[in-house]
Amino acid sequence: MNGHNLAPINASSLFFTPLPPSHIVPPGKESHGRYMLTIPWNRVSGWGQPKIGPRQDLSFDPLAGVLQYAVTCFEGMKCYKTEQGDLRLFRPKKNFDRLKRSASRLGLPSEWDNDELLELFAKLMALEAPLVPNTDGSNLYIRPTLLETSEGFGIKEDAFAAEALLYVVTTLNLGLGLYGSAEGEGKGIKLDACKEFIRAWPGGTGSYKLGANYGTVNISKKPGYAMSLWLHGQEDFISEAGAMNVFIIKQAEDGFLEFITMSLNNGIVLPGVTRESIIELLTEHAEGEKDFPIDGMPKKIRVVQRDISMPEIIKGVEDGTLKGMFGCGTGVVVVQVGEIRYQGTTYKIPSNPLIKIIRDTMTGIQRGKIDEGRDWSFKVPEWNPEGKEGQPEEEVTAA
Amino acid sequence: MNGHNLAPINASSLFFTPLPPSHIVPPGKESHGRYMLTIPWNRVSGWGQPKIGPRQDLSFDPLAGVLQYAVTCFEGMKCYKTEQGDLRLFRPKKNFDRLKRSASRLGLPSEWDNDELLELFAKLMALEAPLVPNTDGSNLYIRPTLLETSEGFGIKEDAFAAEALLYVVTTLNLGLGLYGSAEGEGKGIKLDACKEFIRAWPGGTGSYKLGANYGTVNISKKPGYAMSLWLHGQEDFISEAGAMNVFIIKQAEDGFLEFITMSLNNGIVLPGVTRESIIELLTEHAEGEKDFPIDGMPKKIRVVQRDISMPEIIKGVEDGTLKGMFGCGTGVVVVQVGEIRYQGTTYKIPSNPLIKIIRDTMTGIQRGKIDEGRDWSFKVPEWNPEGKEGQPEEEVTAA
Repeated sequence: MNGHNLAPINASSLFFTPLPPSHIVPPGKESHGRYMLTIPWNRVSGWGQPKIGPRQDLSFDPLAGVLQYAVTCFEGMKCYKTEQGDLRLFRPKKNFDRLKRSASRLGLPSEWDNDELLELFAKLMALEAPLVPNTDGSNLYIRPTLLETSEGFGIKEDAFAAEALLYVVTTLNLGLGLYGSAEGEGKGIKLDACKEFIRAWPGGTGSYKLGANYGTVNISKKPGYAMSLWLHGQEDFISEAGAMNVFIIKQAEDGFLEFITMSLNNGIVLPGVTRESIIELLTEHAEGEKDFPIDGMPKKIRVVQRDISMPEIIKGVEDGTLKGMFGCGTGVVVVQVGEIRYQGTTYKIPSNPLIKIIRDTMTGIQRGKIDEGRDWSFKVPEWNPEGKEGQPEEEVTAA
Repeated sequence: MNGHNLAPINASSLFFTPLPPSHIVPPGKESHGRYMLTIPWNRVSGWGQPKIGPRQDLSFDPLAGVLQYAVTCFEGMKCYKTEQGDLRLFRPKKNFDRLKRSASRLGLPSEWDNDELLELFAKLMALEAPLVPNTDGSNLYIRPTLLETSEGFGIKEDAFAAEALLYVVTTLNLGLGLYGSAEGEGKGIKLDACKEFIRAWPGGTGSYKLGANYGTVNISKKPGYAMSLWLHGQEDFISEAGAMNVFIIKQAEDGFLEFITMSLNNGIVLPGVTRESIIELLTEHAEGEKDFPIDGMPKKIRVVQRDISMPEIIKGVEDGTLKGMFGCGTGVVVVQVGEIRYQGTTYKIPSNPLIKIIRDTMTGIQRGKIDEGRDWSFKVPEWNPEGKEGQPEEEVTAA
């Protein structure tokens, strides 16, 4: 499928269709972006012409791979508006690389030039710029999805999709409901530690962002809890909470404060971009290379990637060495965990002001208020074709 | 969601749309049935009006649960034509019950009257009757699918779909490629025992017929092998082969011939209808309640449901106690396993004429040639509304 004659994603061939003058927002879809980006693919000619046009329903054959066999993967990204009014994406190529990895896991097309894709994303963002709010926590959430449109049926000699579609839609303020609502003493979200449903396991798909990892555990969530805390193994190791990575803050015997998060080694934890960014910032701070972007982080800290079990958390609550716990991810950015229900008992998790410092650092970088020195925050160029007649700039043909 | 005011599936409210006089088969879809059955559902009013009309593409919001989070489950069934020309379904309510169980696992609607649904299925089959071939192995394969059409996005207070769609399409002769091609000495399908991808695990979804179980393991299949043989646990226990249940035939020390298949206890094996039917027939034969429908099955047999490991199979090949192995399922009915590739070595599996006897029994029952005395074979009533104007016989309203 990865032949050299297949057409690449080509941003310059974008076909743009403006909203019709009669455009109205469909009922129930008020929070959605008005436009969508679509790029079809097939194994004969490769990527087809990218199109940006009004958001609309998608049609599939009843036996399409996505409908029958869950051949779908996605990403979660956010577009922020700075105080100066420009738009920012946070480390977008990290998400593009992860989408390639997920696609490859499902036999979907996984080769494209991230710069071309970023140019198309930027144009979609620029079109929605008037919608993007510019307060902390507010955002335009971006959902790139790549799925099999061809028939995924019966026994095939090879496992690769014949036809696929990459599309991108947006929606306002995903995760805002949790943002900042859970800070300080006695607050934080409530997690239900789940032994009945196992989200991921070695040899499975937990480390890939596949739709199949999410719908299969929907029903585990109990009323009154923000999300489930996923456990695995006889030791009740933690993998994730809801769709977030998890950190605990723990006092080590040598006087260091440890930020501990699950290792990626066993393949059951999603390699989150927020997780990775927090690890990088804390590690550089610990190594003295640079101060943490926001004041208040002590010098004697250490980042540890290893398994964490529920018994370890309970022991830390009881002996006072557990100094806090938070989830992180694109949706919530960083959110404090307040309590965990586990085997019939509720454990209160101590709050820690460092969690807010980490969150303010992340949101500060995302909104361009803090320069972390690495170009993590991508500035979206302006583009305003609305009102112009959409035209293909170039015909796409298979080479 | 399971309130008492929700409308049930009501077969008498069927709306039928005949094929247009101009109907032509779309290219690439020659093997598909011409019609489809659709029944929408929403949490406010319950099941909507069932419709049978020309097979067509389905439209979804880009954030629909099925597209994003794999909220989809399905069944596989077959319609056979007897030598007398009537149509038969094999134990259809078994499939309907399993679909309810799968739906419930995903937060999809799972309450309906199987008799109403069967009446609708029967009408869809009756319409396609001219297409159904009447030779052994030939069939019209039926694919009921139930999926979330509403937005499955963000953190929801409850996990139940707001809107769903149950639809049924058909296709000709699924599994026929393997049928009868693999019988006798030195034949049988080739399986690749897979340690890299784990299909199912305790606490997961292996025992439910969810799309998520299938697309995630597509890429494991190696060229030259019919399918993967799924392993799990440090002991390399077998769960299934491809999408089939598995039996081994083994000579026990007490002189009995054992038919051993995986237990359903650990929740990782699909409770197959073909598997269950074979167990029932063999058990009754072993208990002397009735003779196996086709002559040739010895009296001293035993059915055992327990774990089987690859090391046990290898030992059985080497010491001669392994007397055969077969897969079974709706698609293939019964198919002999000829060899297994495991950790770099190919193991030849002995053939066994009893496998053909079991297959001929199953296909004989399915095609109404053998009366097993239990009404396993449902005779589809005739129905021929083509050419009539489709009309709703009754308006559906939420009670």
